[in-house]
Amino acid sequence: MSLSATDITIFLLSLSVILFFARGFGELFRFINQPIVIGEIIAGIILGPTILGTLFPGTFNSLFNQSEEVVTALNGITLLGVVMLLLVSGIEIDLSLVLRQSKVAVAISLLGILFPFSVGFLSAFFFPEFLGLSDYNMRLVFALFVGTALSITALPVVARTLMDLQIFKSEIGYLIMAAAMFNDLVGWIIFSIVLGMIGQNSGHSLPLSSLVFVIIGFMIFVLIFVRKIINYSLPFIQKRFTFPGGVLNFIFILGFLGAAFTEYIGIHAIFGVFIVGIAIGDSVHLKEETREIIYQFVTNIFAPLFFVSIGLRINFIEHFDPLIVSVFLVLAFIGKVVGCSLGAYWGGMNKNDSLIIGFGMNSRGAMEIVLGTLAFQYGLIDEKVFVALVIMALVTSISSAPIMNYYLKKAKAILSFHSLLKSETIIFSSANSKNDVIKELCKTVAAYHNLDFNVVHNNVMKREETISTGLEKHLAIPHARMSIKDTIIAVAIVKDGIDWNSFDNLPAKFIVLLLTPEDKPEVQLKLLSDIAKKFNDIKEIENIIASKDAKELIYKVKQLY
Amino acid sequence: MSLSATDITIFLLSLSVILFFARGFGELFRFINQPIVIGEIIAGIILGPTILGTLFPGTFNSLFNQSEEVVTALNGITLLGVVMLLLVSGIEIDLSLVLRQSKVAVAISLLGILFPFSVGFLSAFFFPEFLGLSDYNMRLVFALFVGTALSITALPVVARTLMDLQIFKSEIGYLIMAAAMFNDLVGWIIFSIVLGMIGQNSGHSLPLSSLVFVIIGFMIFVLIFVRKIINYSLPFIQKRFTFPGGVLNFIFILGFLGAAFTEYIGIHAIFGVFIVGIAIGDSVHLKEETREIIYQFVTNIFAPLFFVSIGLRINFIEHFDPLIVSVFLVLAFIGKVVGCSLGAYWGGMNKNDSLIIGFGMNSRGAMEIVLGTLAFQYGLIDEKVFVALVIMALVTSISSAPIMNYYLKKAKAILSFHSLLKSETIIFSSANSKNDVIKELCKTVAAYHNLDFNVVHNNVMKREETISTGLEKHLAIPHARMSIKDTIIAVAIVKDGIDWNSFDNLPAKFIVLLLTPEDKPEVQLKLLSDIAKKFNDIKEIENIIASKDAKELIYKVKQLY
Repeated sequence: MSLSATDITIFLLSLSVILFFARGFGELFRFINQPIVIGEIIAGIILGPTILGTLFPGTFNSLFNQSEEVVTALNGITLLGVVMLLLVSGIEIDLSLVLRQSKVAVAISLLGILFPFSVGFLSAFFFPEFLGLSDYNMRLVFALFVGTALSITALPVVARTLMDLQIFKSEIGYLIMAAAMFNDLVGWIIFSIVLGMIGQNSGHSLPLSSLVFVIIGFMIFVLIFVRKIINYSLPFIQKRFTFPGGVLNFIFILGFLGAAFTEYIGIHAIFGVFIVGIAIGDSVHLKEETREIIYQFVTNIFAPLFFVSIGLRINFIEHFDPLIVSVFLVLAFIGKVVGCSLGAYWGGMNKNDSLIIGFGMNSRGAMEIVLGTLAFQYGLIDEKVFVALVIMALVTSISSAPIMNYYLKKAKAILSFHSLLKSETIIFSSANSKNDVIKELCKTVAAYHNLDFNVVHNNVMKREETISTGLEKHLAIPHARMSIKDTIIAVAIVKDGIDWNSFDNLPAKFIVLLLTPEDKPEVQLKLLSDIAKKFNDIKEIENIIASKDAKELIYKVKQLY
Repeated sequence: MSLSATDITIFLLSLSVILFFARGFGELFRFINQPIVIGEIIAGIILGPTILGTLFPGTFNSLFNQSEEVVTALNGITLLGVVMLLLVSGIEIDLSLVLRQSKVAVAISLLGILFPFSVGFLSAFFFPEFLGLSDYNMRLVFALFVGTALSITALPVVARTLMDLQIFKSEIGYLIMAAAMFNDLVGWIIFSIVLGMIGQNSGHSLPLSSLVFVIIGFMIFVLIFVRKIINYSLPFIQKRFTFPGGVLNFIFILGFLGAAFTEYIGIHAIFGVFIVGIAIGDSVHLKEETREIIYQFVTNIFAPLFFVSIGLRINFIEHFDPLIVSVFLVLAFIGKVVGCSLGAYWGGMNKNDSLIIGFGMNSRGAMEIVLGTLAFQYGLIDEKVFVALVIMALVTSISSAPIMNYYLKKAKAILSFHSLLKSETIIFSSANSKNDVIKELCKTVAAYHNLDFNVVHNNVMKREETISTGLEKHLAIPHARMSIKDTIIAVAIVKDGIDWNSFDNLPAKFIVLLLTPEDKPEVQLKLLSDIAKKFNDIKEIENIIASKDAKELIYKVKQLY
């Protein structure tokens, strides 16, 4: 069947309209610091039956619904788009980073999958009516799918958000990336099995046990053998063949082959191309130039075609079910944020950083859409659930950056003296020796923060014995590093003053006890210099010392900032 | 209509098989110094009904003939491939180079189109049966088509050949490129009109007069207004939008729009995208990085899909008609080589260089295939003519580099003394003054090369009067630059010797008259130093002087080389 002249005109016109709107909305969203992909999906909803199709059905139909041939050709391109997108996604995964994860990253990854998966699976299995199950026979598969849908994280969106927030290269950024990659990998394996299970009902798949065996066999084969072959072949291909033509072809040939294989065994093409992408991206011989050509062409030409096509399929208003959407949203947030944050917290991070990681991992973006599209095509979910999934993907992705930003600001604030001051740990003491004041401060801290007094006291005294912590202008900062998660500050005001062996021989009247986490030496330095810088005017310090209670003291200190 | 799992498997598998064979044969042809595109077309013939379809019809059918959906999807991709290929071809055209052509380039361009067009048109109009016309009502359109088909030159293949021969940056290379670009532009305009004429017969096109008006209007609009808008917008887009995503989208949106417009008015999509490509490529603001991403992705992924698809359509053995193929081949060679060579010769180049240009412009490669495919799709030509066109494109492209190389070697040889020696211009003189010998040499040369004796003599004497041309070791080289096309050499042996005011005071016995083209000062220097270097052993010179006739002298000189 070939395309008529009218078909070709419409086909090319619709491609340019799709790219135009995708870019327009993409840039609009980038402008308000949101991932471009969100704009692309919204462009599709606007061009699709939801908006254009409702307001101008004639225009919509003549552009996107003209003839079966155009639709099939567009489907072919869209398929190629998503296959290439997954190839790029695979190439971006750093396998060695995934394999040598730190304790925290493993905790985040595992809980970040297990918890949302359990939340999703149990909710969907026991209360399927709230999540829009249409065919009761599919309850188990549906529950598995919901679990997977909740536990997925969109690596490209996460990476983009981390870059926008300028924490891509930080410790937290690294942890999120490592966990998200692991997440992606495990998520797709589970989903491929779910797809295989659907395939069984429709009869065009291997028996489940063989399927799992084949999937795992395929992964091992590609990630071990093919990966090695790629790594050995790349230098040869780059040297002997036209560059970059040879290596570009090599990558796409392998990718399409992997895709064809997994499609053949009854799970979707994108799983195969994704795994092949990982094997390719892992080679140290893959040149940046090649990576860049594929990345730019695919993310800017093919990925938008796919993302816009989502909105073209469905009327989002007609199939909007507030209950299902709300349930998916709530489960998604609870599952992912709680799971990942708990993993981070148990892995040893403080509450604030744990929440940054939780919300960082919450973006479902591109990957959820891919997953939802497949489930919809396979008939596992209906329009309502699909719409709910897309909205959930959009909301989790859009909310990620602002919420992370909120906690990042808090994290920065944690590193300044005034925000750590608490009236409960400010004492007005009449002690008349250094040891007594320190003892009082340690008791206060130990009581308020549930710490062992002896441990605190010993640490502080050990530090105090090596060198006196008296500064100038009535200020003294006894301090210690301890195995705590968050920095702790306590203040003692001794109006009569205590000798603290200061540079300027003035007695210490404003005494700050500073306890910082053992594993973050930089925090101690930062706070010591922060305090020394802020308290450099003896008049102001005397004014603070003159405070009649903790509240007034905190007020006066905050004035300095 | 959506693709089933089997469709998707086959679709992806066929894509990877196509890319694999395209790359394999492409590299094979590159290895034997042929354009990669030849290998890609041959890969298609092998994968198509000609070889695979005949030997293993099962494999062929299951790969490329499985279901209508797969075929339609593949057609969509192939269409996108050829549209993108023409976009890249357009971008590569340097409009300002075309507009400020030298006299020679204009002569080459014009004759390089007019001559083959006339040859093709007249042959096809008066002897259509030898060129495979199937529908006698279409004789005029068919003749116009054959004219266009013969006058087209494949810019990308030409550029590739020039690079391989390392003359891309030379004067000849520049001339060929400028002429080929002009050729491409005019060729496509003519062809778009031919397509419009076919469209009229099938009824889905504007009346011819309006069509020509619209085509010219479209070209003026795009090449003047849109080109300016692009040039103004590019810096803005590159600065404000994501780079290179924004500019990549901009280029493809414009390209697809142009393509959709020309398809809409009844000529093919690729004409519009080609013109838009020219307008884009002309902007100084288009960055190399952007150009490279588009170029590499399109030429390595999409172009091969198109070129391989050629062979997939047709059985080349079944539809091979020796008469039609021979006629097309002969007309193609005669038309293009004679036309371009004449243009170059009349433009003032020598025979040898004119032939280099003629054969350089003879490559039909990619563009002929695009043209033939369209004519075939529009029903203007049948399988036999299509096969003849493809074979003609292959043979003209394959023969181009070796034949050019032959004449390039000759051109280099022209620049060495021994190859310019002719027994007719070697005299054994008994003159006893410098003036007499020079007079004798000039007479010989004037007679043999049909030059005016007085002009030659005056020029040589003028040079001789400024400074004596006597070298050491019996050698003297009187010389002049004149308005001639090729270098001319004559030799006089004066066994008794003549005083020539030499450095070593030895009398001149071996006197070389050297006339070089006025506009090539470097040739004179090259030859003077060449002769001085070779004749530096007095024993050898005396041996040559002792020659008893011209034949022996030439033999002895050649021994030195």
